[in-house]
Amino acid sequence: MRIGELSRETGVAVPTIKYYVREGLLPAGRLTSPNQAVYEESHARRLRLIRGLMEVGGLSVAAVRDVLAAVDSPEPVHKVLGAAQHAVTPPVGGDPEGLEGARHAVAELVRRRGWRVDLGNPSVEAMAVTLATFRDIGHGAFEEVLDDYAEACERIAHADLEFVGRTTEVERLVESVVVGTVLGDAVLAAMRRLAHVDASARRFGVGPR
Amino acid sequence: MRIGELSRETGVAVPTIKYYVREGLLPAGRLTSPNQAVYEESHARRLRLIRGLMEVGGLSVAAVRDVLAAVDSPEPVHKVLGAAQHAVTPPVGGDPEGLEGARHAVAELVRRRGWRVDLGNPSVEAMAVTLATFRDIGHGAFEEVLDDYAEACERIAHADLEFVGRTTEVERLVESVVVGTVLGDAVLAAMRRLAHVDASARRFGVGPR
Repeated sequence: MRIGELSRETGVAVPTIKYYVREGLLPAGRLTSPNQAVYEESHARRLRLIRGLMEVGGLSVAAVRDVLAAVDSPEPVHKVLGAAQHAVTPPVGGDPEGLEGARHAVAELVRRRGWRVDLGNPSVEAMAVTLATFRDIGHGAFEEVLDDYAEACERIAHADLEFVGRTTEVERLVESVVVGTVLGDAVLAAMRRLAHVDASARRFGVGPR
Repeated sequence: MRIGELSRETGVAVPTIKYYVREGLLPAGRLTSPNQAVYEESHARRLRLIRGLMEVGGLSVAAVRDVLAAVDSPEPVHKVLGAAQHAVTPPVGGDPEGLEGARHAVAELVRRRGWRVDLGNPSVEAMAVTLATFRDIGHGAFEEVLDDYAEACERIAHADLEFVGRTTEVERLVESVVVGTVLGDAVLAAMRRLAHVDASARRFGVGPR
């Protein structure tokens, strides 16, 4: 198909498509003349993936590029999953006080749950920075609910793996993990808020809002 | 204390403190002379809260302003919680195809779980947009795990309410909810990734990474 048709099919504007090609997110179309290129169904799929990661997942162009590199990589599954996950884990800012103590708390949690996780994983540091911030602003008591969160996350991870485990093709598998991780964060954040409203309505006794 | 001391105590640079005062995030200090103001411990606490919301929670200045307005509001608890939650719920972009069907799926989930939630809640729409995006990019099967997510979220919301329920002062209560919602998202996202690594290691059979 021509670029105009690709644009209509995916709802992505033509200049944006050209921008993605220039940025290396989308492979160029096959040239049929010096000024004319044709695109395949695979371009449309990739475009929808890029749009979903950016608009709903809130990823930057650079993060999308890393994610797609992982999706396209020929490495073994667990390694690719790790790379994809790395790409969709935003770096955390700030250097709160008590970071050492918080790192220790995360290491303790990992040990307690028996998680097979390397402590150099960027999510360990992300968690430590967040816990240290909780402490910094006087809400360190949050750590008392960590095991409830961990149990919930184990349940979610199990369901997520069941979901992606149904996929047999490696490219699709990695895509599922990336999409599930990024968009799953969004679902989880929204759903947790809804569960909060329900829990608050029950506890503080009012009707729905 | 003087502004320099406030800066040292909180690790926030003096120009940044002045910027927050201009933006209405932080109350001005009490003037002791035309060019000299003093700040209280409450300023330091508020500054740490602002920093945590921005750096770890990733909130914009405008969102922080809304959150603080909710924290400072004299409304009844459940209402304030709703306003605070509203402020920390980022608007979702995009208008994916199949949004109507996705809205229906969310309404069904809310009914099925018996959640006391108004369907006009912004998190309902956020969830619908995300689910529609999953469908758009060919990963609609994700919806099969929604009930696992919902059970996990109910557990988390219960733990969260236990955590904030220990607070008796309303200002602190609302602050707990806001902090727990925003920073809790960050903890949850990081922890889910760690649980993924563990689940993937067990399933695809390799050592920790």
